[in-house]
Amino acid sequence: MSTQPHPPGGLFDGPVHLYAVRVYYEDTDLSGVTYHANYLRWFERARSDVLRLLKIDQRAAIEAGTGAYAVADMALKYLRPAKLDDDIVIRTYCTDIRAASVKMSQHALRGEDVLCTASLRIGFVAPDGRPRRQPEKWCDAFKTVLTEEMSQ
Amino acid sequence: MSTQPHPPGGLFDGPVHLYAVRVYYEDTDLSGVTYHANYLRWFERARSDVLRLLKIDQRAAIEAGTGAYAVADMALKYLRPAKLDDDIVIRTYCTDIRAASVKMSQHALRGEDVLCTASLRIGFVAPDGRPRRQPEKWCDAFKTVLTEEMSQ
Amino acid sequence: MSTQPHPPGGLFDGPVHLYAVRVYYEDTDLSGVTYHANYLRWFERARSDVLRLLKIDQRAAIEAGTGAYAVADMALKYLRPAKLDDDIVIRTYCTDIRAASVKMSQHALRGEDVLCTASLRIGFVAPDGRPRRQPEKWCDAFKTVLTEEMSQ
Amino acid sequence: MSTQPHPPGGLFDGPVHLYAVRVYYEDTDLSGVTYHANYLRWFERARSDVLRLLKIDQRAAIEAGTGAYAVADMALKYLRPAKLDDDIVIRTYCTDIRAASVKMSQHALRGEDVLCTASLRIGFVAPDGRPRRQPEKWCDAFKTVLTEEMSQ
Repeated sequence: MSTQPHPPGGLFDGPVHLYAVRVYYEDTDLSGVTYHANYLRWFERARSDVLRLLKIDQRAAIEAGTGAYAVADMALKYLRPAKLDDDIVIRTYCTDIRAASVKMSQHALRGEDVLCTASLRIGFVAPDGRPRRQPEKWCDAFKTVLTEEMSQ
Repeated sequence: MSTQPHPPGGLFDGPVHLYAVRVYYEDTDLSGVTYHANYLRWFERARSDVLRLLKIDQRAAIEAGTGAYAVADMALKYLRPAKLDDDIVIRTYCTDIRAASVKMSQHALRGEDVLCTASLRIGFVAPDGRPRRQPEKWCDAFKTVLTEEMSQ
Repeated sequence: MSTQPHPPGGLFDGPVHLYAVRVYYEDTDLSGVTYHANYLRWFERARSDVLRLLKIDQRAAIEAGTGAYAVADMALKYLRPAKLDDDIVIRTYCTDIRAASVKMSQHALRGEDVLCTASLRIGFVAPDGRPRRQPEKWCDAFKTVLTEEMSQ
Repeated sequence: MSTQPHPPGGLFDGPVHLYAVRVYYEDTDLSGVTYHANYLRWFERARSDVLRLLKIDQRAAIEAGTGAYAVADMALKYLRPAKLDDDIVIRTYCTDIRAASVKMSQHALRGEDVLCTASLRIGFVAPDGRPRRQPEKWCDAFKTVLTEEMSQ
């Protein structure tokens, strides 16, 4: 029997990335459900896992002074609340890849229920904050999972 | 000389609410600038201050089981990064008031520079999560500061 | 091949609970390493997982108005920093069980390196904030994993 | 009439620094009161304000690669909960100054009630994470507000 806990980690189901989170105390507020800003933390964990699986080593790029991804814009819809201990799956997929940015859609689901959706664009930025072309290898990596916009 | 620190608090300049925040360690991430989700915390502090000045006692409404405001949707643009110790002003104004929701625009500014903008709708929801008409007195309070959409 | 992502979850290795976290952007600050308060969020996730495995349904207890656990005191030592993408294991064990409180030790490890340690006491509190005896069944559940204080 | 909101800011009352925070949604969890880790964020804001008033420019030191302060250890006691909209004052004072570290006490108060106390040591660390002597000018600055440990 294994005595190693699973590190958090998602997987690709075709072009769609799936990542599981559980709702903890830290995620809730006094209304009893997940605080609206915390979905952004979940979505970002899922995107970091996408990078990890695509072998995009963002930490090395930051340490080398090459640059990092930053959210450029984001449209959110809050449809249903998430409660303590809920098991949530974050679905993420890429719908457009440009020289310096990637467009993604993300959904937070509890079973079949969509709780929150995000449509966003992340841009690659140099340490001075200016947009920069992302490394070509990374562009190619994103292209392996590029797909069309889907209904939920 | 006063030995009481100012509690954080904003004010209305006509229909526009102004609220000051400073960038602390907790707000930044390893890229050296404010983590994108943390603007949502700043915007929410400013909206709470709007309620306070309009005499909308949300804590009493929650404790009485009447309901609470929740973000229904939100569109964000990230234009420039905010750095440690920056003094930021959040501008907030209401552009539409319905029976069960209020539409607002919020901008985070450093001096004249717009760092981040949000356009959002908050809905009043019953404790069971369903939309509910907001108290008429609160509707009236919001109407005293209703204004048109502005360019930044 | 499974297309379901693992939900985060720990396990007991004897009386010691192990729970894995990964360091994400949200956890870091501009110094490039994990913000000190965020270890408390990781430790709390691990404690929630302890409750889950011991079949202590805290959400039901909150919704029934019985009470909830709250941290009463905590002593922290920060030994080494945690960096983006690090795989961290949280070790948790119970060293004392009283009528209304439980004492625990928690360590955050990266491989063999201890990054942060916490010694803490959680108390069961009624909805009005007063200490309350924890349900006897829960006391018994904690006793199944009671152990002595260990060196790291 | 001023149309500029006050930026958050504290003041020294003799050697004791006072800093005001208000409890917002983001600070609470589903138990209805402030999430335990969030006191650390408030304490850190107050310490940042201490540095600001003592003319210790930590951002410049980080950007110059000199180093930064990091929490080395911390002992917390949670005495009473803080609720939404509560006005809290953080009292901070320095009780010991060494070559590479400073010891501080911090209390969160609501009126006369002590909600949470912290006793902590911050260490100056080089970018590689190793302890480093703090700049002598900064040592001197801290010494201007050095005081003895007080009862609450």
